[in-house]
Amino acid sequence: MGKDKQISAAVIRRLPRYRRYLHELLKKGVEKISSKDLSHLIGYTASQIRQDLNNFGGFGQQGYGYSVQNLHEEIGNILGLNRVYKIVIVGYGRLGQAMAAYIAKNEKNFHIAGIFDVKQSIQNVEFQNAVVLTCGSLAGFIEKEGVDIAVMCVPPEKAQLVADTVAGAGVKGIWNFTAVDLELPENVAVENVHMSDSLHALAYYMQDMEQ
Amino acid sequence: MGKDKQISAAVIRRLPRYRRYLHELLKKGVEKISSKDLSHLIGYTASQIRQDLNNFGGFGQQGYGYSVQNLHEEIGNILGLNRVYKIVIVGYGRLGQAMAAYIAKNEKNFHIAGIFDVKQSIQNVEFQNAVVLTCGSLAGFIEKEGVDIAVMCVPPEKAQLVADTVAGAGVKGIWNFTAVDLELPENVAVENVHMSDSLHALAYYMQDMEQ
Repeated sequence: MGKDKQISAAVIRRLPRYRRYLHELLKKGVEKISSKDLSHLIGYTASQIRQDLNNFGGFGQQGYGYSVQNLHEEIGNILGLNRVYKIVIVGYGRLGQAMAAYIAKNEKNFHIAGIFDVKQSIQNVEFQNAVVLTCGSLAGFIEKEGVDIAVMCVPPEKAQLVADTVAGAGVKGIWNFTAVDLELPENVAVENVHMSDSLHALAYYMQDMEQ
Repeated sequence: MGKDKQISAAVIRRLPRYRRYLHELLKKGVEKISSKDLSHLIGYTASQIRQDLNNFGGFGQQGYGYSVQNLHEEIGNILGLNRVYKIVIVGYGRLGQAMAAYIAKNEKNFHIAGIFDVKQSIQNVEFQNAVVLTCGSLAGFIEKEGVDIAVMCVPPEKAQLVADTVAGAGVKGIWNFTAVDLELPENVAVENVHMSDSLHALAYYMQDMEQ
């Protein structure tokens, strides 16, 4: 499928959300849905939904609506979820453990190939098919295994060093939980998770409701 | 300060990011900054920044730029970060522990008043000034302590029940990590954290770079 290079970041941000709702519909056995019904479900306007999906050539048929299965699959394709990514977890404290468990349970396209931590006492601890290894072997592991993504759960003061290591060893994406803005080569994608941004937006909406 | 009720969700989402960068500038002792320099730093256009901040009456002076401290403080006020929120963590598995540690370390406006989990073996485990309590005492605790926010880290199948409990007991905000869309009274704000959305956006950007 042709992909328009000009698709805005805002649209890309909405696609995973579409896919989540479509997945729920699939599980319930729903076969087709109109942009209007999708609108009620997701909370975007029907016109927004049509406009978003038209970015990718549109998938709906006039008077029929969208095929839930097709749309789910196509959005998955657009997002690059038609393949498996090898990932490493770097930093296996509470957050690293939580993310490993989350990914293993919910993300079948993301396979945890290795886990890395500096802490001596947790070396060789097992998690499913992976074991915790020392950070000294991180670069070699990434090269040998052809790891695609590093999930960074290390302390902020280690963030850039780890980023340099994993990018240098060939990962193409970093899922960054360190709250540090990383300097990276142009061919490495990064997705920063700032927990605080979400908590602060909640505070805003709470006071907005009080007024 | 007067607040325009029509401020878009997109602007609200950007405010915590502004505040983060301003906080970094404050720490470095920077006193003022132009929208152009702020633009280079944050990655939004200077015109976007001026437009965003004009929603709140604007804080800049022509030819001077923004006072970093004022702007940091004003954005904090807008977000409702000029007060302390009492929070409870509900669900103290790996994610709940990670979030408790994160909040305690990074969020001085959010005070962990209590932690709740069904698991018998972790009852009375201490975390700073809080101890893990049984979920049976959750509603009473919220009422007695005047808890503002529940951080929900419970399994999805428990999500709505916990939401009903905490909303019924009087919390005004829910930070929801359960990936379940909660049905809530209109006066309770909710902020859903969908880890997958962020990971799937990363996958998109990775394949976008390959093309």
